[in-house]
Amino acid sequence: MALAPYKQLELEWKRLHAFRGAMSLLRWDAAVMMPRGSADVRGEQLAALETEYHALLTTPKISRLLDRAQASAPSLEDWEIANLREMRRQRDHAIATPVALIGRLAKATAQAEVRWMEARRQGRFDLFAPHLEEVLHLVRDKAALLGQALNLPPYDALADAFSPGISTAEIELLLKAYVRRLPTLVGSAIEAQEARPILPLTGKFTPGRQRALLSDVLKAMGFPFDRGRLDESSHAFTEGVPGDIRITTRIDPSDPFVSLLGALHEAGHAMYDLGLPKPWLDQPVGQDRGMALEESQSLLLEMLVGRSRPFVRFVRPLFEKHFGVGGPEWEEDNLYRLLTRVRRSPVRVDADELTYPLHVMLRFELEQRLLSGELAVRHLPQAWAAAMEQRLGLQPANDVEGVLQDIHWALGSFAYFPSYAVGAAIAAQLMEGLRRDVPALDAQLAQGDFTGLFGWLRQNVHGYGAKLTAQELIKQATGRPISAQSALRYLEAKYLADVPASSAAA
Amino acid sequence: MALAPYKQLELEWKRLHAFRGAMSLLRWDAAVMMPRGSADVRGEQLAALETEYHALLTTPKISRLLDRAQASAPSLEDWEIANLREMRRQRDHAIATPVALIGRLAKATAQAEVRWMEARRQGRFDLFAPHLEEVLHLVRDKAALLGQALNLPPYDALADAFSPGISTAEIELLLKAYVRRLPTLVGSAIEAQEARPILPLTGKFTPGRQRALLSDVLKAMGFPFDRGRLDESSHAFTEGVPGDIRITTRIDPSDPFVSLLGALHEAGHAMYDLGLPKPWLDQPVGQDRGMALEESQSLLLEMLVGRSRPFVRFVRPLFEKHFGVGGPEWEEDNLYRLLTRVRRSPVRVDADELTYPLHVMLRFELEQRLLSGELAVRHLPQAWAAAMEQRLGLQPANDVEGVLQDIHWALGSFAYFPSYAVGAAIAAQLMEGLRRDVPALDAQLAQGDFTGLFGWLRQNVHGYGAKLTAQELIKQATGRPISAQSALRYLEAKYLADVPASSAAA
Repeated sequence: MALAPYKQLELEWKRLHAFRGAMSLLRWDAAVMMPRGSADVRGEQLAALETEYHALLTTPKISRLLDRAQASAPSLEDWEIANLREMRRQRDHAIATPVALIGRLAKATAQAEVRWMEARRQGRFDLFAPHLEEVLHLVRDKAALLGQALNLPPYDALADAFSPGISTAEIELLLKAYVRRLPTLVGSAIEAQEARPILPLTGKFTPGRQRALLSDVLKAMGFPFDRGRLDESSHAFTEGVPGDIRITTRIDPSDPFVSLLGALHEAGHAMYDLGLPKPWLDQPVGQDRGMALEESQSLLLEMLVGRSRPFVRFVRPLFEKHFGVGGPEWEEDNLYRLLTRVRRSPVRVDADELTYPLHVMLRFELEQRLLSGELAVRHLPQAWAAAMEQRLGLQPANDVEGVLQDIHWALGSFAYFPSYAVGAAIAAQLMEGLRRDVPALDAQLAQGDFTGLFGWLRQNVHGYGAKLTAQELIKQATGRPISAQSALRYLEAKYLADVPASSAAA
Repeated sequence: MALAPYKQLELEWKRLHAFRGAMSLLRWDAAVMMPRGSADVRGEQLAALETEYHALLTTPKISRLLDRAQASAPSLEDWEIANLREMRRQRDHAIATPVALIGRLAKATAQAEVRWMEARRQGRFDLFAPHLEEVLHLVRDKAALLGQALNLPPYDALADAFSPGISTAEIELLLKAYVRRLPTLVGSAIEAQEARPILPLTGKFTPGRQRALLSDVLKAMGFPFDRGRLDESSHAFTEGVPGDIRITTRIDPSDPFVSLLGALHEAGHAMYDLGLPKPWLDQPVGQDRGMALEESQSLLLEMLVGRSRPFVRFVRPLFEKHFGVGGPEWEEDNLYRLLTRVRRSPVRVDADELTYPLHVMLRFELEQRLLSGELAVRHLPQAWAAAMEQRLGLQPANDVEGVLQDIHWALGSFAYFPSYAVGAAIAAQLMEGLRRDVPALDAQLAQGDFTGLFGWLRQNVHGYGAKLTAQELIKQATGRPISAQSALRYLEAKYLADVPASSAAA
């Protein structure tokens, strides 16, 4: 007897999952291992796989099976129904973007990635500009086609691919709530911290010892080194699939917190992926629920955990162990102040929690102007500098700490940046739920015990995969829809706690 | 206007080439970078790609295009005609083996590879046996189907996939010529070398310094590190494609020649691939001409060059430079004697030129018996030991230096081993041509100048890709069909040169 249509679809998607894993490995290798001159070869390979993936997803056979499975939906279980919905969603997105465009985009982004690295090394935006131009051109086509098919404006259509169920209007509302409150908050926090000087860290932080420390921290979290890797790259990222998950971080020999916080961020992604529902791992419903959710997990670990007193208490002895350091600057209080220092910096990945959303707003506005054609790539460095002045009152010293700092646009990821700000809001909201349900959380974290943390996240977030929409999921976990409320409450408590009442009220 | 059928085929194969490159990278990663526990995930990925590759190659569309292109053959150029022939050949092989079998084989070999490594670590054949059993079972099915389609006995059908145009009968003839002469020659050579004791090497050979030395040697050859890599693995191999070629070697801290000769062997493969005709790199006619030819290139570099006086003269100062070594054991004469020492060893990759073909004969006979079902996997360790006794008069001390020494069967590569012996014969034949046309060869090699060597090989071998059959190619380059004549002439001259007439005649 032939398999039921729904079961046939599961087999088709099992194959698509293997394709996605292969493409992910090709991207990982391109950033971590590939010889510098091989970008053209890798571009051809990724384009061929992307093209074929797209073709497999858009065959008439899949559409027929989707229709027939839909007709039999009453006999399916709830996970299967959600899976069918996500299958349809993937097919709809794929059908809206022609295969030739996908192939060209894959090739263009593979090239642009390498040129971006080269441009950073040489500090020359002009080396990268023509490649960004090409990527932007293709993304614009994609946004237009996707928008037509989904009946959305171009930017909204791109955002929908990253974080389904969170509209651009909702994103804008959330960002505006941040932008309204944060500049004042940043000022107060800076004022407050000036009263308590921070001692700078000294010591030797060789890459080998940093790796050993990171390994200890990741092991404490349960990162599976027998089915995962930690490597170095110029831009931290997570690739791979549960079963072979690969994170990277950047190592700065003069500051061990760069690699540590980078690794925490990526470990947040990885632990989310590892907590996805096991029986559904190779199916659409077993994937993460979009990028805002992904970033909520990475930022929860990097910012809410990584920059907390309990985590400092856990990690301090590891610094002693691996670097043999000691002295007043390594006291818990000083480390905590270091980790919660607020500074207006031009670089997003070095930004603190208070200024981060301002970085996002800058990119959110610039990428909308790039997409609409209102802003030309050749004017981007100046526009970037102007926006930096407006949002953070700063001028980047050069393009490397300005317009060349992010890899996202090179990879064609427009409409991705808002995920960070929405993610931060979700993280704070989840943390309130966590504290309510796991009263011993701080005590556990201070001992390097992450079971309470990840137990709650698996039960309330990870384990649902893509079964619910992001809004449904967060409402179920926290009782409220996504907003900046918790985040602002959390930030005020953290950064104004020790501030004299007079300036806190300012 | 639509593209001509032949041009459409070129586009199809360009895509297939990208698929092959992606699969090659997945295999490279599995052996060099992948976490130990991720073999199942990688197996699924490789199976999905292999399956799709096979499907793309066997669509009715390809067959129709092949027929239409064939009809227009009179208007094609000679490279195009040869390309069309190779396309058909690939399609015929693919159509003979059903896609389900390909997928199962990809999964089984990915698992078997990891189990083979584990079995070696623990020295336990029983851990590997069930996986070899599974691979053998599938290879047997494949050989039967392929044999039916190509009208060949099963073993011949497998051999045809590796080295088209060299029949099993020719292979057997060649091996028998070796086996008839070599045992005596081995005895004489051992007797001769006993008169001149070899001083063992001492010193510290840290992996970092070995890598630096290998890098110097490979750079002298023109290995392109901007489009290639050298890594370590438990079994040396070459993967990738021209444009991103990756070789590995094994590092033994107590013997720097292990990594050096391993790297030379793989560099021989890599330089062949890099010399293939540039305009045809992504087409069947731009591929290497089968495995016997591949091994002729690797053995030429490892054995005929790597174990020669001129090469020793070039490499000796590099040992001084990287290891700071000196003394009588590092004199040219001693190093040369070390590199041409003849020893009956149970391990193929440690074997010298004289005993190597005996190792091949052993495997050639065993794998035929395994395939026919005459020999069961569980009896393989004993059969191996018995054959080792017969061919080399030795008993392996354990399975690691016995039946577990080669990865080939784990990867499903049956009928591959003869390529080494045929390759060695071809290498010696080519070297005679080289010496005739490049009289300064030895002087060049002694200075680390490989331009004469690779210039000749590119012009006479590499640059032809798969345009000619192996026999045609060798006949054109050397004036004679492939045989063991040159090899035996070369071995006798090299290993009996200093032997007193009485024992040479024995």
